[in-house]
Amino acid sequence: MKDPLLFTPGPLTTSATVKAAMLRDIGSRDTDLVELVAGIRSELLRIAGVSREQGYEAVLMQGSGTFGLEAVISSVIPREGRFVVLANGAYGERMAAIAERLGISTRLARWPESESPDVAAVQRLIEEEPAATHVAMVHCETTTGILNPIDEIARIIKASGREFILDAMSSFGGVPLDLSKLEIDYLISSPNKCLEGVPGFSFVLARREALEATKGRARSVSLDLLAQWEGLERNGQFRFTPPIHALLAFARALEELREEGDVCARAARYRANHETLRRGMRRLGFVEYLPAERQSNIITAFRYPDDPNFRFEDFYRRLRARGFVIYPGKLSQADCFRIGTIGRINKQNVRDLVAAIGRYATFSPSYVSATI
Amino acid sequence: MKDPLLFTPGPLTTSATVKAAMLRDIGSRDTDLVELVAGIRSELLRIAGVSREQGYEAVLMQGSGTFGLEAVISSVIPREGRFVVLANGAYGERMAAIAERLGISTRLARWPESESPDVAAVQRLIEEEPAATHVAMVHCETTTGILNPIDEIARIIKASGREFILDAMSSFGGVPLDLSKLEIDYLISSPNKCLEGVPGFSFVLARREALEATKGRARSVSLDLLAQWEGLERNGQFRFTPPIHALLAFARALEELREEGDVCARAARYRANHETLRRGMRRLGFVEYLPAERQSNIITAFRYPDDPNFRFEDFYRRLRARGFVIYPGKLSQADCFRIGTIGRINKQNVRDLVAAIGRYATFSPSYVSATI
Repeated sequence: MKDPLLFTPGPLTTSATVKAAMLRDIGSRDTDLVELVAGIRSELLRIAGVSREQGYEAVLMQGSGTFGLEAVISSVIPREGRFVVLANGAYGERMAAIAERLGISTRLARWPESESPDVAAVQRLIEEEPAATHVAMVHCETTTGILNPIDEIARIIKASGREFILDAMSSFGGVPLDLSKLEIDYLISSPNKCLEGVPGFSFVLARREALEATKGRARSVSLDLLAQWEGLERNGQFRFTPPIHALLAFARALEELREEGDVCARAARYRANHETLRRGMRRLGFVEYLPAERQSNIITAFRYPDDPNFRFEDFYRRLRARGFVIYPGKLSQADCFRIGTIGRINKQNVRDLVAAIGRYATFSPSYVSATI
Repeated sequence: MKDPLLFTPGPLTTSATVKAAMLRDIGSRDTDLVELVAGIRSELLRIAGVSREQGYEAVLMQGSGTFGLEAVISSVIPREGRFVVLANGAYGERMAAIAERLGISTRLARWPESESPDVAAVQRLIEEEPAATHVAMVHCETTTGILNPIDEIARIIKASGREFILDAMSSFGGVPLDLSKLEIDYLISSPNKCLEGVPGFSFVLARREALEATKGRARSVSLDLLAQWEGLERNGQFRFTPPIHALLAFARALEELREEGDVCARAARYRANHETLRRGMRRLGFVEYLPAERQSNIITAFRYPDDPNFRFEDFYRRLRARGFVIYPGKLSQADCFRIGTIGRINKQNVRDLVAAIGRYATFSPSYVSATI
């Protein structure tokens, strides 16, 4: 029985060869794994447009993406530091919640979910917060699918002498980004989003000079970013049991990114997926939550149709029975569902999804009670 | 090219069918995964001899076993609590280090690595520590392979009104253990040890009443044990991206444990593996670090041979080239290497390993410089 295609923000549909790479058992201290991890780390820097020689490091951390975010927040902000989060969705809120739980002095600055933090307001905010040591924001807010512009904000933050933390969880590998030109100190992302691996860890790309200055700040042993990096540097091994099979899958996924033609080619495929989706959904009468110019190609939020008989759970279940998994909404202000366009899916898959939606998304009461 | 067999404390050699279970992609919020996770949680309780009706809960936590330990320590010990660790190896030390990093008032009571914490001394220690709220120890210390007796110590701790935390990382599923008869509040273990799954998460078996009383204690969002449990209870989902493929493998591994005849049958296989190893290694002149009566069947530490030409790295490399991965030592006081006897390996695999050791473990200088 074939699994349905995943139109989600990840974990997503991966290639058969990525999954097949997991059909091995390697020792956690064995040279095969040490080489695999070293290869992954340098490939991640290459994808980000930098190298160790340019002063950047890649650190892998067990757990989901949120664990990687908490590893950074809990390991790099000093006890007397202050953390400013620029938020326009649930993932920005989450960074602030993590910091508050850790007892870190935090300012959560909110923008509407349909708007990005704007340069002038961020500039004022920074001036209002002389004690701020670290500023964070989310690149692509999966809440809405909005792609926040980061270049100018990163520059402002850097110019003010603060360190910049970017949650690039759902964008890295699917949106071109060049660390050598951007002023980012810590970028956090995931293997199971645009890089099309499987879940089990997260990774942090860090400016080495910033990372080295964090000695003594880590509040947790498991999530100690500096110790994790030092461990990887010492003998190429994780300090604690690595997610071996997720690493095997990821190494293969990175090869497949290269084979596809790197980030630009992948971004083009995602763009084609998104445009196919948008055109098809509009034809069916669905309306996107975001204006097109703020919309990423990663995931798209659609408003519930103006039909009293629409029930998301029914809609979901019917599509799933046809082999398509979509995603619920997460917006605080509007009833939406979401459709992801990343992972090992192409335009034809998106067309098939839209066709299924067209066939099954007539929300008449008689239909709702029918079974597929 | 076939992977070498892993004679390690895990991650270890798993069955082909466990690995093949990962050849899927499921959505993280999909019913397939919700059902899989529910099945895993109830099966873990069954293996431990308890049920939800008896007041126990199984909570899965992303990350390695250490993340599960930190989840418990950081989530259940109150701010004004005091933590006593009974340690006779590196993993006991690690629990104390985790607590100290979290700013928890901690007493680390040490025993020699070749001895288990003894009942009389633990009784005195508890009396000396009226403020202690939580006491922890390791069931099987992988440092040496010692199996610490826990029944009497658990009773003393419970009788004194303290809560008991057991690190059963490398024993659970391979050593019979009945939570309905033991006074354990929190047991932490791993899918990639005796349960023969792959790494990517850990799990905690908790007395519900104890867990429910921990509200407001968690120091971390990612590692918040109570919130993780509440999330699983609310909708059967993980709060943050689950390690889907490791969960798929684990569900299959638990079926295979049942097929083998449950924990007693598995423990018997491990015992046969260990006895085959011990007899064979003694025949070759190797000496175990521990007296037989304290030795588990999980992993065995052997002293370096009395040969000035012995180099562990050479020894390891030569065995690996023949398809056998062994494990370095971790003892602070003696030069040892370790051989694990858990995972999908049997007596014949152990005999083959011993034969390879017999053939390649002559440590003459001429041999050391030769290549295989």
